[in-house]
Amino acid sequence: MTDIKQYMQDIGARARAASATIAKASSGQKNAALLAIAAQIEASRDALLAGNALDMAAGREKGLDAALLDRLELTAGRIDGMLEGLRQVATLDDPVGAISELKPRPSGIQVGRMRVPLGVIGIIYESRPNVTCEAASLCLKSGNATILRGGSEALHSNQAIAACITAGLADAGLPSDVVQVLDRRDREAVGELITMPEFVDVIVPRGGKGLIERISRDARVPVIKHLDGNCHLYIESAADLDKAQRVAINAKTQRVGTCCTLESLLVDEAIAAQTLPRLAAEFAEHGVELRGCPATLALVAAAVPATDADWGEEYLAPILSVKIVADLDEAIAHINRYSSGHTESIVTEDYTKAQRFLREVDSSSVMINASTRFADGFEYGLGAEIGISTDKLHARGPVGLEGLTSQKYIVLGDGHIRT
Amino acid sequence: MTDIKQYMQDIGARARAASATIAKASSGQKNAALLAIAAQIEASRDALLAGNALDMAAGREKGLDAALLDRLELTAGRIDGMLEGLRQVATLDDPVGAISELKPRPSGIQVGRMRVPLGVIGIIYESRPNVTCEAASLCLKSGNATILRGGSEALHSNQAIAACITAGLADAGLPSDVVQVLDRRDREAVGELITMPEFVDVIVPRGGKGLIERISRDARVPVIKHLDGNCHLYIESAADLDKAQRVAINAKTQRVGTCCTLESLLVDEAIAAQTLPRLAAEFAEHGVELRGCPATLALVAAAVPATDADWGEEYLAPILSVKIVADLDEAIAHINRYSSGHTESIVTEDYTKAQRFLREVDSSSVMINASTRFADGFEYGLGAEIGISTDKLHARGPVGLEGLTSQKYIVLGDGHIRT
Repeated sequence: MTDIKQYMQDIGARARAASATIAKASSGQKNAALLAIAAQIEASRDALLAGNALDMAAGREKGLDAALLDRLELTAGRIDGMLEGLRQVATLDDPVGAISELKPRPSGIQVGRMRVPLGVIGIIYESRPNVTCEAASLCLKSGNATILRGGSEALHSNQAIAACITAGLADAGLPSDVVQVLDRRDREAVGELITMPEFVDVIVPRGGKGLIERISRDARVPVIKHLDGNCHLYIESAADLDKAQRVAINAKTQRVGTCCTLESLLVDEAIAAQTLPRLAAEFAEHGVELRGCPATLALVAAAVPATDADWGEEYLAPILSVKIVADLDEAIAHINRYSSGHTESIVTEDYTKAQRFLREVDSSSVMINASTRFADGFEYGLGAEIGISTDKLHARGPVGLEGLTSQKYIVLGDGHIRT
Repeated sequence: MTDIKQYMQDIGARARAASATIAKASSGQKNAALLAIAAQIEASRDALLAGNALDMAAGREKGLDAALLDRLELTAGRIDGMLEGLRQVATLDDPVGAISELKPRPSGIQVGRMRVPLGVIGIIYESRPNVTCEAASLCLKSGNATILRGGSEALHSNQAIAACITAGLADAGLPSDVVQVLDRRDREAVGELITMPEFVDVIVPRGGKGLIERISRDARVPVIKHLDGNCHLYIESAADLDKAQRVAINAKTQRVGTCCTLESLLVDEAIAAQTLPRLAAEFAEHGVELRGCPATLALVAAAVPATDADWGEEYLAPILSVKIVADLDEAIAHINRYSSGHTESIVTEDYTKAQRFLREVDSSSVMINASTRFADGFEYGLGAEIGISTDKLHARGPVGLEGLTSQKYIVLGDGHIRT
């Protein structure tokens, strides 16, 4: 067995053992651990900033680009955010142990379902060190053991955070193996982590499309993933055009780089001449480039021609593709063909068309008369989220505490036998 | 592209197209299709028996063993069972489109979840031709398109059933591609089916452990699987010994070859001397061989020594492993180590120990004072089941219509934007 394989097997076995302890920990004990970790971080601000300074210096020396350095940086404000996140997760309802649908059956047994942790969750992420704290807190509260593998460029920052987590777990009387942060930079560690089904129940990759595709391809363990967010808004012929304008501008410009930002606008041909020029003017004020179909170009002088590739693109930038469609059928067909299955919205006052859109669009969030920017765990009332799943199995949409659990069947009898 | 790859890609593309139609079909239309398929089967009994006779003759010539020939055989009674199954699935509630948890959020939007089909389901199974009908009916009712790949030894039987399904779908005005039964024997077809994530959303293998392990290893599509059922019963020190005797005998002997049959009995040392000899006598009457730990052997003369391999064995035969344990902790630790995660039961009158067992045993069904034989979709009130999942993600335990669906988020607004 190679050295790195042995290292990962040891970590996996320790996580598996710790998962039994954290699975049966009480809500009180888990909340105490979250608050103890917060206290440790509060007391270790200097150590966190010092570790991060090492990573930032090394990053600059390596020539990392400005966006990556920004994600890597820990500031006092970002540490405040980590503390707020820990305290907020402590206030969320504990999903573990909740029993639902307990009903008597004709045989006399009672059958229900109990919510239980998944077991061991492996998280693979890139440069942002605050993910270490966020992911650990959600897995801990949902009763799972975690193995965290951050970006190698954030090693010192992550080790400083890991020390606080370990100390906080100890303060609450929980084993430190409940949260393990890998301290080796070896790339092979990831390869081992995603191919140990005996020790790891699910992998959550957080990062760019390349990372997620690579992990999905190579994993021998189930993966909860979101690839990209090519989100659509369809302004239907019966839309209230003021609502349409407000929603479209918000969905594209409120924050341009998120996965639920609008990337493609569909406009019904019946109202295109009326609405598109006005919309284009406001998009221009926000510096948004429009890439349009030929019919759009005829109405909007400033638009440039869209290629077929534009319909499938997640720009994460002030660019929007615009297509004029004949009707609801064409809009739904276009979305189900080009969308990444993240979030789509319709603006309409037509009841039947709204219902059809809701039912027939095959995405993790489908909206009526609302900005796609609402697709978020906090906005949905889940609290913090570990990611937004565009998969269909298990968890779909924002994944909070419930998405990190499963349900087993429970049967209560009184000596019942099957006849 | 190879010939078989092209064949499977064509089938996949047709299934994907049909999935959009069946996803939005009404419950009435789906139920009409189920009843029309039943009518076609009723009218085609002779054709089904003739096709099956060809398969049986070829099977005998190939020297298939008696158990396999039994599973392969279609009789008038088994055709009756298929008809009853179709009619029963038609009576089940349609899960598709159900909206739950719709709640207003502080921002003013309403957020809820809508149950939706998974899309395209691939089913891979072995000799039993009635699975063709069962699997097709569950996938159809849950709004999914299906690609069915039965055992090559059942080809003529499956083609005869497929003809009835196609005709029944047409009678109900649904496209025949909603259910496609592969008509080629090529082994490579399976390899293609499980590696087309663009066309297939989930694979359900039904069959022996070898089939399921092979498919889980090679699939590039999520798999809903159950491996084996090494089910345990723990007779705790505070057990009512009459209930214990009744439950243990039923769990082992009511039907010896099912996945929820008892395979391993744990007895608390405090009551072992009192209960084991009496139990052993009744097991002997049923012809069950006991394989015991050393302490068991001291109490039961007829028992033979168990090896370590026995603790992990799913016998599917009149054999039972028996171990005397010191307490609840040892029982839970033994189960969580050796069980396959299918079904475990405790017999006890102790409230706290019952609750701990319920919470801490990590299996898809956990029972108190009930026979493991209850772990079944009909007994749980799900109606028919496509299998019993020992996975943790998505579906766990008996998988009925709900397990063949997913939930998407829906958001209802009135021009709401995020601020």
